[in-house]
Amino acid sequence: MQTELPLDSRWSVCWSDDPPGVGYLDQRRLPHSETRAVARTAADVITAIATLAVRGAPAIGIAGAYGVALIRRTAGDLDAQARAIAALRAARPTAINLAWAVDRTAAAADPLAEARAIHRAQIASDRAIAVHAQQFLPLGASVLTHCHTGGIATAGEGTALGALIAAHRSGRIRHVYVDETRPLLQGARLTLWELGRAGVPATLIVEGAAAGLMARGAIDAVCVGADRIAANRDTANKIGTYGVAVLAKYHGLPFIVAAPEVTFDPHLAHGGAMIIEERDGREVCEFGGVRVAAAGRAANPAFDVTPGSLITAIVTENGAR
Amino acid sequence: MQTELPLDSRWSVCWSDDPPGVGYLDQRRLPHSETRAVARTAADVITAIATLAVRGAPAIGIAGAYGVALIRRTAGDLDAQARAIAALRAARPTAINLAWAVDRTAAAADPLAEARAIHRAQIASDRAIAVHAQQFLPLGASVLTHCHTGGIATAGEGTALGALIAAHRSGRIRHVYVDETRPLLQGARLTLWELGRAGVPATLIVEGAAAGLMARGAIDAVCVGADRIAANRDTANKIGTYGVAVLAKYHGLPFIVAAPEVTFDPHLAHGGAMIIEERDGREVCEFGGVRVAAAGRAANPAFDVTPGSLITAIVTENGAR
Repeated sequence: MQTELPLDSRWSVCWSDDPPGVGYLDQRRLPHSETRAVARTAADVITAIATLAVRGAPAIGIAGAYGVALIRRTAGDLDAQARAIAALRAARPTAINLAWAVDRTAAAADPLAEARAIHRAQIASDRAIAVHAQQFLPLGASVLTHCHTGGIATAGEGTALGALIAAHRSGRIRHVYVDETRPLLQGARLTLWELGRAGVPATLIVEGAAAGLMARGAIDAVCVGADRIAANRDTANKIGTYGVAVLAKYHGLPFIVAAPEVTFDPHLAHGGAMIIEERDGREVCEFGGVRVAAAGRAANPAFDVTPGSLITAIVTENGAR
Repeated sequence: MQTELPLDSRWSVCWSDDPPGVGYLDQRRLPHSETRAVARTAADVITAIATLAVRGAPAIGIAGAYGVALIRRTAGDLDAQARAIAALRAARPTAINLAWAVDRTAAAADPLAEARAIHRAQIASDRAIAVHAQQFLPLGASVLTHCHTGGIATAGEGTALGALIAAHRSGRIRHVYVDETRPLLQGARLTLWELGRAGVPATLIVEGAAAGLMARGAIDAVCVGADRIAANRDTANKIGTYGVAVLAKYHGLPFIVAAPEVTFDPHLAHGGAMIIEERDGREVCEFGGVRVAAAGRAANPAFDVTPGSLITAIVTENGAR
């Protein structure tokens, strides 16, 4: 654990002193505007989480932890604090990190120290993933990534994208190709933005362009994140990942998954048991609320499953497997 | 040649009598509005072609042929006619079909009969492609297509898409998956529209969803068009086609290319000699003129090359090879 690390506004979520508050990067305004705000009340923190100004499960957890520290300092008597903490814990229903971090901080004698410890552990985990991923990235490589796995979602340095940024900083890789990642364009909006901010040479492409780039030798490796990993290494990730894995196999390129240990689900024997969320077809048919496609039906599976056999290495904070 | 075929407004371009004119479907307004117009002067025909109201090389050629017939009836003396024909011939510089069809019609004793013959030959060619393609489409198949190869671009019944519509009409296939085809969304805008108009059950997907659908057995075959085919069967087509071909190979699915004989370029020995157009990156970064992506560079190759070894059959009006 790197106890000397400053937990300042370089991170997408941080503690803010004098007066106390939770600082955050407003992710809703990216990539067009890089706006930071400070939540000064429990209600402000809850709003930031509920409106997706703060998003990404680890980042939400850290915002919740700092939120408890804020409540302990500002929200009146213990009853009022308990009510505020319960409301914060429920700001988003599904992100397990939020409840876990809120509970842990609420039980701590020094809530701010506890929140900072959670934050430091997240950053350390991200950095360990980046260290372990290096060995699988060819020297001087141009690496393709898909979707967004960057630091703004972890309040740290990110997983797969963090590994690529670190690998560029160390001179190991030279360039990143970014799949735009339809339908929600996380690659175009967030990944390209983070790479630009980190000074990494990057090129945005449509998903359909990846195969041709591989055929002419422009891509040397693929590095992506994961949403869930089964016991046999089958990996669920953003729709489009499996196709990229097949292309990597066909062109003889390493395909690296970088994700924290918590992504492994020991209760899932294999990918066939994973349930794939089918989202509203309007995400495919519409743009900014305006219909682009002709009238008709659209399928919109949010994830796909990449068989473990197509994955060169799964890298976590504990190493590769 | 099917001489009894009515050449009426069922086609995207047609002759219009009383007063004479060239009728056309305004493709710029698709898929939101199905609007037909009639060009009553040479200038109207030129405008329709130059503004892409009429697009697709065969459709442009047929509009040019009917345009010459219109000029012969309405554009004054022979000198005035010659000037109008020269202007029409130059309405778009690169489509070889336009100059060819204009020249042929201008030299004919009965220009309207000649234009109609060109139009009938186009429709007959499209239909022959559809007939020959059937044998490669598995019975009851759900077929994936990419980009747009429909009748509105040929003023006939289309190539790959025409084959799929005919195969559905004959009961051979049951469903079509449509790649949206980023960046210009020809699949979402045009292919989905033509399939809907033809009553073919169709489902729009993002390119990234195709691999997962293949893995779970939802796609039985792939059928696409071609922009240029080398002597060794290497095929240039819309960006994304090569990746779909690799996926089809990996999943053991037939990959059919349907295109007219003129698509073969005997001067090209193999795909490596093809020059791939690199278009403006703004097509990837912007949507409807609004920047979507973060600041940064985008690559936008318009085509890719599928090796002949990945193609199950190339079907033309003369059969398969």
